[in-house]
Parts: sequence; structure tokens; C-alpha cells
Amino acid sequence: MKDCIFCKIIKGEIPCHKIYEDDNFLAFLDIQPIAKGHTLIIPKKHYNTFEETPSDLLEKIMPVIQKIGIALKKSLAADGFNIGLNNGQAAGQLILHTHFHVIPRFNDDGLHTWPSVKCTEEEFKQITESIKAKIK
Amino acid sequence: MKDCIFCKIIKGEIPCHKIYEDDNFLAFLDIQPIAKGHTLIIPKKHYNTFEETPSDLLEKIMPVIQKIGIALKKSLAADGFNIGLNNGQAAGQLILHTHFHVIPRFNDDGLHTWPSVKCTEEEFKQITESIKAKIK
Repeated sequence: MKDCIFCKIIKGEIPCHKIYEDDNFLAFLDIQPIAKGHTLIIPKKHYNTFEETPSDLLEKIMPVIQKIGIALKKSLAADGFNIGLNNGQAAGQLILHTHFHVIPRFNDDGLHTWPSVKCTEEEFKQITESIKAKIK
Repeated sequence: MKDCIFCKIIKGEIPCHKIYEDDNFLAFLDIQPIAKGHTLIIPKKHYNTFEETPSDLLEKIMPVIQKIGIALKKSLAADGFNIGLNNGQAAGQLILHTHFHVIPRFNDDGLHTWPSVKCTEEEFKQITESIKAKIK
């Protein structure tokens, strides 16, 4: 898509630190990494968000993410890694081209999970029914 | 697996707020939600971590995650959602049974991404080569 930074990276119009490429996907280092080795994995075809991405393409991306996560861990002697995807700007999606993050993690690296919220049993039940009603 | 809380939930020995179930996967509300509607999606077969989970099972989980993310967004009138997976305790994995998080997000909900770190061009290049060498 015109004016999409990731589409320009795919076309080679903007350089990247390429980690992996196949017919469907490209993986490269995030230039604003949360940890050194933070990698982005994107479909070569443009879709704005995860929810708009065809599910057969999402199926194929999973083994790629796994392969890269394992390689990150080995190469950086990391203790673990996070996989993340932000669907929509409200979720922190900065570039509107579907992308997964893989972030190497180390024991005591100081990155903390978000705090939890209180939810009553009544709310849990009501939310469960409400979500179930929307699953297709 | 004996003593695994998620395996006990699958067997029905511990209750849960079930969102979705099929032959391979179960989805239910996280009891310590980051936001109301925070859902966990797990394979019914026990694997400690993402990296140990067979890739064909990871392929199949993706359309389920997508379906649930879309349902969360609709039912809660959310503006977006995050998908997350913590591989290993260093990454914040509390239960050693592979699980994906889907977290509904709202504009200005106050959840911020982690800060980025500085990385020199030389480091980017060295890290790229080091990861590429470990991809199989």
C-alpha cells in the first residue's frame, strides 16, 4: 500500500535489518527495540490489522514466529521471549500493517506486566455470556 | 499433566468462565484480568511452553485467536485488542502450559507499551547476523 512504511521495506525502498524472508513473510529488527534483538514479523501482502488478515495467512505465520523466537533465544542467550500483536491504534499499533513482535527476555530485566483489575463473579458471568454470543 | 492448573481446568476439576471450546483448544476468562474480558486460549494437550508446542497445533490456534479477538471487540465495544504470549518464566509466564492472552483495549485506557532501548547501527548489524545464524 502506498505510504505504508512496511510495504516500502518489503519493496526494498527503505532499508531494514533483515532476519528472515520467505514467499509470504518478512522478519526484521524493530528500529525502536524494547530489548536488543526485538524482531517484527509481517506478511508481505498489506493488511491494516490482524482482524482483517486472512486466517490462512495467520496460520502460516505461526511456525515462522516460533522459528524466530527459538533463534532469538539461542543467539542472544535469552531466558525467554514475548510474542505480541497490537490490533488497532488503541492497542498500541503504530504502523497499520499487520505485524507480530518477538521480544527477547532476560531474568530480572525489569519489564513488568500490566496491573490487573478487579472483576466480580457477576461481571465474569455477564462478560462470558456477552463474548460467547459474538463468537461466530 | 498432574498438578497443572490449566490441565485441571480442561478436565473440569477446576471451574472456569468458558468462552469457547473445540477438539484442540479451550478459551476462558483470565481470573486476574488486565482488562475486563481478558481471555486465555490454551491447547487441550499439555506443553510447557510455546517453543515446545508442535507447530501444526500453533497453526490451528491462530484462527481461534482471531475469532475470539473479534468477538471480544464486538461484545465489549472495545477499540482494539492485544495478543500476547509469554514464553518462559523470564517472559512472565506464570503457568507452564502454553497459553495466549487476548486483552481488550480502549482509547486512553492508560496501558503503556514498554520503553525502548538504544541500539547502535553496529549492534543492529551484529545482532542480525547472530540471529540469522541460528534460524533453522
